[in-house]
Amino acid sequence: MKSNLRVALIGTQFMGRAHSNAWRQVQPFFEPERAPELAVVCGRDLAKTEAFARQWGWKETVADWREVVKRDDIDAVDLSLPQHLQAEVAIAAARHGKHLFCEKPMAMNPAEAHAMSRAAIEAGIVHAVNYNYRRAPAVALARQIIDEGRLGTIRHWRGAYLQDWLRDPETASGWKLQKQFAGSGPHGDLNSHSVDLARYLVGEIVKVSCHRRTFIDERPSADEPGKRVAVDIDDASQLHVSFANGAMGSFEASRFATGNRNANQFEIYGSRGALRWHLEDLNRLEFYSDDDPPHLRGFRQILVTEPCHPYVGRWWPPGHVIGYEHTFVHSIADFLAAVAGQSDYRPDFRDGARVLEILDAAMKADESSASVELAPPQQG
Amino acid sequence: MKSNLRVALIGTQFMGRAHSNAWRQVQPFFEPERAPELAVVCGRDLAKTEAFARQWGWKETVADWREVVKRDDIDAVDLSLPQHLQAEVAIAAARHGKHLFCEKPMAMNPAEAHAMSRAAIEAGIVHAVNYNYRRAPAVALARQIIDEGRLGTIRHWRGAYLQDWLRDPETASGWKLQKQFAGSGPHGDLNSHSVDLARYLVGEIVKVSCHRRTFIDERPSADEPGKRVAVDIDDASQLHVSFANGAMGSFEASRFATGNRNANQFEIYGSRGALRWHLEDLNRLEFYSDDDPPHLRGFRQILVTEPCHPYVGRWWPPGHVIGYEHTFVHSIADFLAAVAGQSDYRPDFRDGARVLEILDAAMKADESSASVELAPPQQG
Amino acid sequence: MKSNLRVALIGTQFMGRAHSNAWRQVQPFFEPERAPELAVVCGRDLAKTEAFARQWGWKETVADWREVVKRDDIDAVDLSLPQHLQAEVAIAAARHGKHLFCEKPMAMNPAEAHAMSRAAIEAGIVHAVNYNYRRAPAVALARQIIDEGRLGTIRHWRGAYLQDWLRDPETASGWKLQKQFAGSGPHGDLNSHSVDLARYLVGEIVKVSCHRRTFIDERPSADEPGKRVAVDIDDASQLHVSFANGAMGSFEASRFATGNRNANQFEIYGSRGALRWHLEDLNRLEFYSDDDPPHLRGFRQILVTEPCHPYVGRWWPPGHVIGYEHTFVHSIADFLAAVAGQSDYRPDFRDGARVLEILDAAMKADESSASVELAPPQQG
Amino acid sequence: MKSNLRVALIGTQFMGRAHSNAWRQVQPFFEPERAPELAVVCGRDLAKTEAFARQWGWKETVADWREVVKRDDIDAVDLSLPQHLQAEVAIAAARHGKHLFCEKPMAMNPAEAHAMSRAAIEAGIVHAVNYNYRRAPAVALARQIIDEGRLGTIRHWRGAYLQDWLRDPETASGWKLQKQFAGSGPHGDLNSHSVDLARYLVGEIVKVSCHRRTFIDERPSADEPGKRVAVDIDDASQLHVSFANGAMGSFEASRFATGNRNANQFEIYGSRGALRWHLEDLNRLEFYSDDDPPHLRGFRQILVTEPCHPYVGRWWPPGHVIGYEHTFVHSIADFLAAVAGQSDYRPDFRDGARVLEILDAAMKADESSASVELAPPQQG
Repeated sequence: MKSNLRVALIGTQFMGRAHSNAWRQVQPFFEPERAPELAVVCGRDLAKTEAFARQWGWKETVADWREVVKRDDIDAVDLSLPQHLQAEVAIAAARHGKHLFCEKPMAMNPAEAHAMSRAAIEAGIVHAVNYNYRRAPAVALARQIIDEGRLGTIRHWRGAYLQDWLRDPETASGWKLQKQFAGSGPHGDLNSHSVDLARYLVGEIVKVSCHRRTFIDERPSADEPGKRVAVDIDDASQLHVSFANGAMGSFEASRFATGNRNANQFEIYGSRGALRWHLEDLNRLEFYSDDDPPHLRGFRQILVTEPCHPYVGRWWPPGHVIGYEHTFVHSIADFLAAVAGQSDYRPDFRDGARVLEILDAAMKADESSASVELAPPQQG
Repeated sequence: MKSNLRVALIGTQFMGRAHSNAWRQVQPFFEPERAPELAVVCGRDLAKTEAFARQWGWKETVADWREVVKRDDIDAVDLSLPQHLQAEVAIAAARHGKHLFCEKPMAMNPAEAHAMSRAAIEAGIVHAVNYNYRRAPAVALARQIIDEGRLGTIRHWRGAYLQDWLRDPETASGWKLQKQFAGSGPHGDLNSHSVDLARYLVGEIVKVSCHRRTFIDERPSADEPGKRVAVDIDDASQLHVSFANGAMGSFEASRFATGNRNANQFEIYGSRGALRWHLEDLNRLEFYSDDDPPHLRGFRQILVTEPCHPYVGRWWPPGHVIGYEHTFVHSIADFLAAVAGQSDYRPDFRDGARVLEILDAAMKADESSASVELAPPQQG
Repeated sequence: MKSNLRVALIGTQFMGRAHSNAWRQVQPFFEPERAPELAVVCGRDLAKTEAFARQWGWKETVADWREVVKRDDIDAVDLSLPQHLQAEVAIAAARHGKHLFCEKPMAMNPAEAHAMSRAAIEAGIVHAVNYNYRRAPAVALARQIIDEGRLGTIRHWRGAYLQDWLRDPETASGWKLQKQFAGSGPHGDLNSHSVDLARYLVGEIVKVSCHRRTFIDERPSADEPGKRVAVDIDDASQLHVSFANGAMGSFEASRFATGNRNANQFEIYGSRGALRWHLEDLNRLEFYSDDDPPHLRGFRQILVTEPCHPYVGRWWPPGHVIGYEHTFVHSIADFLAAVAGQSDYRPDFRDGARVLEILDAAMKADESSASVELAPPQQG
Repeated sequence: MKSNLRVALIGTQFMGRAHSNAWRQVQPFFEPERAPELAVVCGRDLAKTEAFARQWGWKETVADWREVVKRDDIDAVDLSLPQHLQAEVAIAAARHGKHLFCEKPMAMNPAEAHAMSRAAIEAGIVHAVNYNYRRAPAVALARQIIDEGRLGTIRHWRGAYLQDWLRDPETASGWKLQKQFAGSGPHGDLNSHSVDLARYLVGEIVKVSCHRRTFIDERPSADEPGKRVAVDIDDASQLHVSFANGAMGSFEASRFATGNRNANQFEIYGSRGALRWHLEDLNRLEFYSDDDPPHLRGFRQILVTEPCHPYVGRWWPPGHVIGYEHTFVHSIADFLAAVAGQSDYRPDFRDGARVLEILDAAMKADESSASVELAPPQQG
């Protein structure tokens, strides 16, 4: 029996919670070769971190990440920090040879991301960026269907990631609405997921144009009652892209799309088939095929809960649907497999850096009101 | 060029309107060999009937149906009367050799229906009962799929026809809620459609049990303000049936199913495939097949608007949906083809009589709280 | 009783057919003050035009439109020609004082359209462009809901009009794929519908960017067997726009969106509510409202078949759905009301010209890979 | 801080797995006053049970349930056995004062269930039957909407629980298809869930009729290759019921409904509103209300993931859907609250016994082909 993989988690907010759950759940459901050990959790507020550790089963609590990343009794570091804090920690941990599981967005900008990527590659560690929706079973099945050639030549990607939590002008502004911490609004937060999915399912993006908009430019401060603060990030962002393989793509992200709480969705149209997916109905994949007899063609509603489907056979019998958090468990399961040398992990830091490059180019395109071409991805 | 088919319409209410439209529309869209001529319309209130004739293009107006059914210059009679008036007219018209296109329900009871059927067969005329939903393109495609063997052995029919126009206890009672005119409530009005579809798609029904309910047994009179009248028909009716081929079936009809205006729907489950249809989305047929590869199975949403689909190629290009009234045009087109000797028309009066037999047996089953077996259909 | 409105139809292809049906159907279902008389149909191939006239009930057949537009016994002209032929006929007919009902797109370019518009306004006639989807009951209800203030401030228009009839590279090229006749591909053919709907529901468009793509640049000739011809129009077109009221909008049109036959659809997000519609399910409107109690919020599936809904009460009882062609009947009904002085008709030639201006600006934006601002619409 | 609740699990099959997960997950997500301690798991095959214990985190392993139920260091027993084994264990555990969390069906027949219920009440313990679907957030919201009076007088329950895993006649027969172990087929296995939901949402059932069917009466043996065994349970079962409050209900359960893997669904129609739910889309509740303005009425698609919705705020932010297993966590959370004296647990053993009474009466109704009336539920 293999030794446990000793994990340190840095960050205890929403994503720290989602990752903790995944580290716990992967064991009984996926039975990895090296079981993860929830060794250390790291957070600045020690009292809160201790409560968090008790709640989720982390054995030890530490306030300073610098102590953690160099410890010999830690094998892997889970980075669940806001993006403006990730690079420094990641690079330090990589230099100490820790495998890295990193929440998205991995950094504030492509430069940081490339630095992280270089450090990880030099260190020879496993480096993962958690664009978790790749590992929804229906999305993984979409990739399988494409790999099987069932779509023919892909012509169109139509992605959208719509939320509505900012639709009220009196919703207060926190760090997520400040450029210095968040970099951008849904442009980075939501489009990054869609761009990762588009690269996974369609291919590399080589040209981009973009339109961003801030609908409400001043909001109540979340921190100082009575004060109003300027909003210096986007409220909505649209992209048009060209893929290297000739397909065209559109993306739309918003926090003002009333009635959509977390509506991550895409459509892919190929010369012989098509796919559609929506996160609110995440166990279902829609598939259309010209291989069907003409009188029987239509979008199939595939309930992706069969043993022959990716990941999901590890959970429950057919027809028993899974939820949002399971995608994180699948990410962790694959990360553990990569650490065990069983497979490569994608998206890795190079992929994560490329997503940031594309979004960065898009912001430049928006500023110049013109399309921007992208050089091929940097190697290594 | 063939002579026109000279038609007399008896009845000018909702169904007279729907039939008039169908006689008008069949000509340009289906270009039948013998074009229908809207020769005579017959209604008791002559002023109203004249207005109706002007509106719909009937050439002549007559008050007494007895005059019409014997005229030499009439080839076919369209019966759009309430069911308690149909039998006498139909039998008289048949004896004069008029082809008969008869709205459902064709009569008050099986005895009347069999008499009509005998008269029609003796006269050698074409006799049609307008269970129009058979001729929704999606339903006709369902039949084609079954005939192609794609469902295997059929196990289940699940039908429902749900309306809600009586849900308010203060909705007034008219002739449709009086047993002497209507015979029954949704049991006859709605279940009759479902029973016809079940016989068309699954097969003959040989055993039935039934539960009917009257939720509101007194309502304001529609005719006399301030008066309340007893309701002596059912408000809802459920059937369980056995088919001759071993399948089992359920039916549910109601006028109290809030939120459902005209929700005629069915599901059919076979050993290798399944079908689902809903009138509110009448251009779509759902089809599931075990012939698909296991990882790609799911209900297909077939948009039944292709040239290769039944009827619909006569209308508009693919993707251009049709509506409720088009089913009547298809019925008339097939009736004209039958008159021209190109095909048989089903459901004919024997089918219509069988539907009434089944519903009649069901009422007996309800009264006795026990199942009733049905003898095979009468021949001729 | 008012005299009939004597109509001449110019054009006998798909749209001539759809218009003929509408002129026939408006009479019984809408009972307009002045009944339309199907007086003359005009087509270059006289034998075909005579067959068309017999099929649809046009009284007289003429080969040369010049004869028709000057006749005293014609009150209105219906233009159902390809767009490159419309302007000349329209201007001549306007000068003879004929009311004009004009299929979209009304012309090849904004210059032609403005000339038509000037002629129509000078002549004081009713001038209508048949962007028929405005008159789907669900779309008219959408406008009513917006006018009632239920959406608050509109933030997003997301429109798409997806077809797939060109997905096969071996589909032959006809006049619709040649720039000299069609002007553009789905950019003009499909986006024009969406742009009209966006102006109707959201407001004026003042800035536009665009990306068009030709996926297959050579196809078999539809006319000369064995020959291949270049395709010089777009296969797909995406727009990003800004509305005068601050909303942002996206449009996507394609003939390569496999599985979509005629998928005209939109989403509108406002600060307090949202709407969604899809042509394949045209009787339904989705509506979300923040006025609902928080625990009960969700997109309502409104089946737009009630007497209180626009147009549809003229047809059948609640729950009896209508189809594609009914939108044309509604257009004709409103045109007749405008001729009778009961209301104004929108979209008129000015609206039609504005749509072409926007699409023209978009093509310039595509060529320059930069956004183009639009001057306010020309008056008169 | 309260002491832990020390739990013993009896049974290590599918339900043992689902319960183990729930005991683990309740702690971080619901933070109960008394944390559950996974003390002992009991299974006949000790090697397998030890593997199970390691996988799920149970501290100790025991082969004989008799040892477990009397131990002083156990506070609660979780019964996850096949139904023919549950009664003896439950009664013994109750007599030792252990709180009981019991998987459904709780027993083989009403007599066993009543004996269990009496033992539990005498012992004064908390006794729970895990009809888990009550605790899907959408179902709990349905109950809340009914309690708020938004449906008016309920008229119709339409329930169905459709599976298809037996549709192939060559699927082998195991203990689930043998009467001596399973009692019945989907009649008990699936209808029991629906009957529990109907009692929860609509009210007590007082009359029942039933039709059961065995489509395939001989199958390959699961245990002895080459042998065929008789199937002596039902393959499908339909119920018609009357509720004490005047509503009527239908139920349909099948293992032959091709294309349905686990399609537990219901519709409820009241005089002023309606509800619909489907397990495959378990985060959504459909709600129709006559309180809406007439032109805006329609079924609302409520995504039940808001903090104001039952249970779900404990998991993730709005729009992040949960899955099948979460219903078990909710059951355990409520069981722990009941043990802590914070609330009563329903359905309790009396409810579970009543469900079995109803299903038992239904089987008698099926045998006699006549309706059976039910006495009011036994008290205590």
